Amino acid sequence: MTQKTVAIIGSGNWGSAIARIIGNTVIQHSSTFQERVPMWVFEEMVDDKKLSEIINTEHINVKYLPGKKIPVNVVAVPDLMEATKNADILVFVVPHQFVEKICHQLKGTVKDTAVAVSLIKGLSSKSTNTQLRLISEDIGEMLGIDVAVLMGANLAPEVANDNFCEATIGSKSLSTAMELKKLFHTDNFRINVVQDFQTVEICGALKNVVACAAGFSDGLGYGDNTKAAIIRLGLMEMMRFIEYFYPNTRIKTFFESCGIADLVTTCYGGRNRKVCEAFAKTKRPIHELEIELLKGQSAQGPLTAAELYEVIKTRDLLKMFPLFEAVHNICIGQVPVEDFIGKIRNHPEYEDRSNDEFH
Amino acid sequence: MTQKTVAIIGSGNWGSAIARIIGNTVIQHSSTFQERVPMWVFEEMVDDKKLSEIINTEHINVKYLPGKKIPVNVVAVPDLMEATKNADILVFVVPHQFVEKICHQLKGTVKDTAVAVSLIKGLSSKSTNTQLRLISEDIGEMLGIDVAVLMGANLAPEVANDNFCEATIGSKSLSTAMELKKLFHTDNFRINVVQDFQTVEICGALKNVVACAAGFSDGLGYGDNTKAAIIRLGLMEMMRFIEYFYPNTRIKTFFESCGIADLVTTCYGGRNRKVCEAFAKTKRPIHELEIELLKGQSAQGPLTAAELYEVIKTRDLLKMFPLFEAVHNICIGQVPVEDFIGKIRNHPEYEDRSNDEFH
Repeated sequence: MTQKTVAIIGSGNWGSAIARIIGNTVIQHSSTFQERVPMWVFEEMVDDKKLSEIINTEHINVKYLPGKKIPVNVVAVPDLMEATKNADILVFVVPHQFVEKICHQLKGTVKDTAVAVSLIKGLSSKSTNTQLRLISEDIGEMLGIDVAVLMGANLAPEVANDNFCEATIGSKSLSTAMELKKLFHTDNFRINVVQDFQTVEICGALKNVVACAAGFSDGLGYGDNTKAAIIRLGLMEMMRFIEYFYPNTRIKTFFESCGIADLVTTCYGGRNRKVCEAFAKTKRPIHELEIELLKGQSAQGPLTAAELYEVIKTRDLLKMFPLFEAVHNICIGQVPVEDFIGKIRNHPEYEDRSNDEFH
Repeated sequence: MTQKTVAIIGSGNWGSAIARIIGNTVIQHSSTFQERVPMWVFEEMVDDKKLSEIINTEHINVKYLPGKKIPVNVVAVPDLMEATKNADILVFVVPHQFVEKICHQLKGTVKDTAVAVSLIKGLSSKSTNTQLRLISEDIGEMLGIDVAVLMGANLAPEVANDNFCEATIGSKSLSTAMELKKLFHTDNFRINVVQDFQTVEICGALKNVVACAAGFSDGLGYGDNTKAAIIRLGLMEMMRFIEYFYPNTRIKTFFESCGIADLVTTCYGGRNRKVCEAFAKTKRPIHELEIELLKGQSAQGPLTAAELYEVIKTRDLLKMFPLFEAVHNICIGQVPVEDFIGKIRNHPEYEDRSNDEFH
């Protein structure tokens, strides 16, 4: 068996953190993987030096993950074609707006037998008002290969600090899943694999909408129990949504890191929560608060809420998703944030379910 | 149909908060319930006046829920027998150490057709080293009646403030469940009913052990993702434990307020988290920290961990529950808190589950 070549596409904060893991695991499993791991770097100048050259001499991404060593066998490559040449495993870890352009460039150059794994959270911009599309679907269609996903409650700074964290890999194929587990699983980065890849991926997008609701609750001054009720109702809508659009979903997947763990972290610590808390307190436009609070990063929640809203409205499903609907209407200024609780008070979760429960 | 008499047994912080709800719902559903609701008060003197008399004149429990009006149809009664005379629904809301004595007094005086509902969180002190016992089982056995439970992410102060909160009622019988829903469900206190009463009740005890683990994580300075991983592993052990001892449990029950919602609230805001955070930081004995931080209240988590430990050890199940085991061993000083992550790193959750997942 020849060793497989792993290429990392992306070298931001998350890409650099994951490069620290992959650089070590490929050596640990050197009969499975090639030791040299090319990492595509979007070239930019840092203090008059090329970022790729800094990474290859200092072995630190001084711009996006300062102070953390990247193993020397991870090699920064500014040319995308060169970085991905002969790759058997393509690790996608770029901002989601770059996916289409990258795949367009890669089209036709990737081995038939290659697989990709996407670490990108969010929805495809090709989503329509009747169907959301997953980023993994975009990659898979454009490159003609299988795409797995890795999601979970794992923010780059904690992973880069070697803190104990978890992640979930979702993959259609068992052999791909087990190979990817080898590539990512370490003493401090604990991986579970599931087959239900669509649930894994879409949880990562929908949780941001629930985090907006949690932020409203915080901003309105409600306590822990109100927030817990909101998070729970949000989770119920996530489950309904995924069950409706992906009927093969397994309820167990929601108990993985990509499910409740990531949801809870995002609702207590994430940036969507933060922006929406500030929105509820100040009533200032969300895009202004993003600039001020997130220093150029964006909050995906309001955008995802808008996309969800279109899909559920077009399909006449608004009654099933009062929390998603309310988050969207509040974010666009159609409903005052003070009305939020009123919009979820008669949630379908509270309807009589005795036929289902008592048997 | 004659109206049913509701008696509230207990008038502490939680009892008084729930009396505010019941006092209103019995009037709203006056064809179902008697309007007069006796509430047993453990008599004590407050500023030279009897607490029961203060409640019946000022309609405020000045000692345990100051500033909040209790409806006038809730009548404080210092005599337990008088308070429960002819009761059709007995609402138990007392500290768990009083249950046995109260049931002993009530034995033989309760109608055959009566039902009880327990709002008491914790385990029975009659638990043995082979089997945990539920408080509802104690009440049911001693009084010879059916016992339902009401649990969830609902702390008395928030419920008393009429904040939006949820609760779960677990009841064997559909008719009891629906009647209790009438008694508790309001615009701000939203009730779901399930049949799986044992899961509802035991979640309320086990979550405190997980909250100890979350407190260790906070005290050791770990971040959001480590804490999310710990909470998730704790939830998995709760589910394993309940599935093992109560094989009829339904996974859906964990998605109710009594499950993940209560767990999350407790792991972010509860007193077990607080004491165990302080323990990890200071290494001072837990009973000292309780006195200092909880002003006389106790943290149930370490006690429940000790009871769990006996049961799982006796049955040779320690390997399935490394988090529960570690919490107990750390609380009793057998294992340094710094070793906590080491004890859960190879959790059975991370074992190869491909046979189960890929089909």
